[in-house]
Amino acid sequence: MESSDSPLSQLDSLFNPRSIAVIGASDKTGRIGFVVVNSLVQGGFSGLIFPVNPRLTRLLDMPAFPSIEVIPDEVDLAIIVLRKELVLKAMDECGRKGVRAVIVMSSGFSELGEGKAEEELVTKARHYGMRFLGPNCAGYAAPWESVYASFENRVQQGNLGFISQSGAMCAVFLALARAEGLGLSMFVSYGNAADIGPDELLKYLNKHEPSHLIACYLEGLIVRQARQFLLAARLVTPHKPILVLKPGNTRAGARAIASHTGTLAGEQAIYSGAFRQVGILQANTLYEFIDACKTLTALPLPTGDRVAIMTNSGGPGVLTVDACAHVGLTVPQFDSTFMQHLKKVLPPSCSVDNPVDVGPEGNEGTYQHIVQLLLANKNIDIVLVVCVPPAFSDIRAITKAVIAAKRTCTSKPLVTCWMAGDIVAESLPLLEKASIPNFPTPQRAATALSFLVQRARWLNSQP
Amino acid sequence: MESSDSPLSQLDSLFNPRSIAVIGASDKTGRIGFVVVNSLVQGGFSGLIFPVNPRLTRLLDMPAFPSIEVIPDEVDLAIIVLRKELVLKAMDECGRKGVRAVIVMSSGFSELGEGKAEEELVTKARHYGMRFLGPNCAGYAAPWESVYASFENRVQQGNLGFISQSGAMCAVFLALARAEGLGLSMFVSYGNAADIGPDELLKYLNKHEPSHLIACYLEGLIVRQARQFLLAARLVTPHKPILVLKPGNTRAGARAIASHTGTLAGEQAIYSGAFRQVGILQANTLYEFIDACKTLTALPLPTGDRVAIMTNSGGPGVLTVDACAHVGLTVPQFDSTFMQHLKKVLPPSCSVDNPVDVGPEGNEGTYQHIVQLLLANKNIDIVLVVCVPPAFSDIRAITKAVIAAKRTCTSKPLVTCWMAGDIVAESLPLLEKASIPNFPTPQRAATALSFLVQRARWLNSQP
Repeated sequence: MESSDSPLSQLDSLFNPRSIAVIGASDKTGRIGFVVVNSLVQGGFSGLIFPVNPRLTRLLDMPAFPSIEVIPDEVDLAIIVLRKELVLKAMDECGRKGVRAVIVMSSGFSELGEGKAEEELVTKARHYGMRFLGPNCAGYAAPWESVYASFENRVQQGNLGFISQSGAMCAVFLALARAEGLGLSMFVSYGNAADIGPDELLKYLNKHEPSHLIACYLEGLIVRQARQFLLAARLVTPHKPILVLKPGNTRAGARAIASHTGTLAGEQAIYSGAFRQVGILQANTLYEFIDACKTLTALPLPTGDRVAIMTNSGGPGVLTVDACAHVGLTVPQFDSTFMQHLKKVLPPSCSVDNPVDVGPEGNEGTYQHIVQLLLANKNIDIVLVVCVPPAFSDIRAITKAVIAAKRTCTSKPLVTCWMAGDIVAESLPLLEKASIPNFPTPQRAATALSFLVQRARWLNSQP
Repeated sequence: MESSDSPLSQLDSLFNPRSIAVIGASDKTGRIGFVVVNSLVQGGFSGLIFPVNPRLTRLLDMPAFPSIEVIPDEVDLAIIVLRKELVLKAMDECGRKGVRAVIVMSSGFSELGEGKAEEELVTKARHYGMRFLGPNCAGYAAPWESVYASFENRVQQGNLGFISQSGAMCAVFLALARAEGLGLSMFVSYGNAADIGPDELLKYLNKHEPSHLIACYLEGLIVRQARQFLLAARLVTPHKPILVLKPGNTRAGARAIASHTGTLAGEQAIYSGAFRQVGILQANTLYEFIDACKTLTALPLPTGDRVAIMTNSGGPGVLTVDACAHVGLTVPQFDSTFMQHLKKVLPPSCSVDNPVDVGPEGNEGTYQHIVQLLLANKNIDIVLVVCVPPAFSDIRAITKAVIAAKRTCTSKPLVTCWMAGDIVAESLPLLEKASIPNFPTPQRAATALSFLVQRARWLNSQP
């Protein structure tokens, strides 16, 4: 049976299905076949779930089926978690059943040199007009649609779409995202990308409204994929930012990739140039990657690179200036009118130049007043607020004051650097809720802001 | 009364006293005068504690005294937590009582332009032959001696001596240390350093056996202090490493310092040069600072800069090569004999060059065997072990395996990069206990290792 639908609506069957069968469902809690069914249930999937396993009659209070073909309803999406030898037959059954999209989680294909077995999956899918994700993938989660078609399910809802070949890096990234309070609109592990590759995912996420940023961990992008990826990116970047972390950006790293995968070391520089050209932002480290996600999903773009810093401690203020300078942000001196204004508001021991240092006595009132003034200053594009809470200060009250000040100006990016650890921990959920990205060090705050400036500059450079 | 003791033994009275009076002790739990007494008690101080406050007769089950002069025993150390106006009189009483060392936590002196009031404290102390820390300081904690003479008391015992002018940065640093499982042998907030400055603290910590590394946060080091600091450092660095974090290492940062403190911006470069010359290691960011503390306190020095990387995932392996290259570490190719050896041990799908990639199936046995081989390889100076735990892997078992492998070679530095967050959290205490520093990202691991190499190189360069 050939489907008459366009490819995009098949991706809708994949990412927003009305019914899902799990072929290889299991009642053993340690097995992926159990975890996936359980994720779908726990995630609140609103459609029908069909566990498929000839040895089961029920699973998690649902009827189980010996084969996908005997399911009495239509099946939009089938997830295959069988061992490699059984996958092709299952694909055949899916095709006969009229399934529109498949996720093949099973591994043991081209990643282990079994390219021929993988080609057979592609041929089978084409025959039936099905599209599939994988093989050797971790599936996906779509928190806004309540679909957790993966064995990774602890995802907070937000505005970041994340794609990764590697399932392991999905797990790492999701753990970091949880720790940083970063919410996702979607994550997709595309595995070997035998059929659906990163290019199509870019285009899908471009139309996926909750996704404001598309972040890609591009390990082992092969040349064919890369070309398609760049072509797709060119269509997306005018509308949504794309952020890439690609291992191998030093000579030694590129050599390591070359010796492991057979790609050419010289290609790395070509990638970087091509990424820049189509407006893809590139992170160099895992922290840069996650921190750029935090600013790019939450904040408006700045109109320039001029940062005002507010601090209650001189040294951390200067560390913040150092960090801004290091990533190419400008920390301008204030004009004399503005400094006169600050002088009227602050005690004489405070510094009224940039960074404004309100001293350890700076309380919630001071923070609210000064942040508001900085946001209103037309020579300032970005506000970075530092707090090193002394023992007697009320960091929750200061946090609420900054949140209140932010409401007076929603057009300028504002981030905080609350230092540090358990001292400030209880105030971080307040910042997250108010969409104020917080960073534990000045360096991470400044680097994250520099991605906003890069994005704004690239958009401005477009005709 | 002039003391006939040498300055060092007076510092012993400060840092290892037999009896402590707290002048300005309070029964109100929110007050510093309460927190300090409580810290001494909770910290298990083995000597006598004398709360001093005319309005109290008892505090925390101890007799309180209306004045220090009526205490029937000798007092080695007095901690003054009175408001500024009362400090000089209290110093006088301490002198008459024969107190040998004083901590003046009270603020409101030279940091607010009240240099004359501070000079009076110095004159008074000289008159009685007393030494003092502060004013405007947070005191100190010495976990090995069970003395917590501070309102900061949540400190894990370890081998790092930390000194900081700023009490707020002490709090920040201690919070980071707690989060990173880094133990301290001592922290000292020296405040305005009217009497005891960072130079004397360096010399004291040089003789303080539990302190293996001296880390200094040098905000607002004035020129006179700087000269003495460098002279002291020159005596210390041949024996113990000194690590410095000094805000103002970019042009913009230096300008910010200059405008706030009146020191010259050009001095920053001179500082860096002087630091290098006397063998002081310099961190550029807060993470570099804390991460260098982790390696320098826990690990032997390497004989070279050749890093072997082991990973169970290709991309993170290459990210690690990138990170090593970025900080100047070498990731050499293995010789063919060694690769043959690895080939015999590992499945054919694994990569046997550097980084060794054992793939997602790599289990505790693989980790133990490979780490042991890398540690035994005479062409390798440092071993960096990466693990991105797949859902089915047992990260605790892998952790124990690495710890067991480490026992076969104690002369080479070994660190781990367990990625990430809550997935690996339960295994981190095992690593801490085994003195294996762990880092959440390859970049932080590589940077931390580069400080070990710097230290080894500097020692080797000495005649």
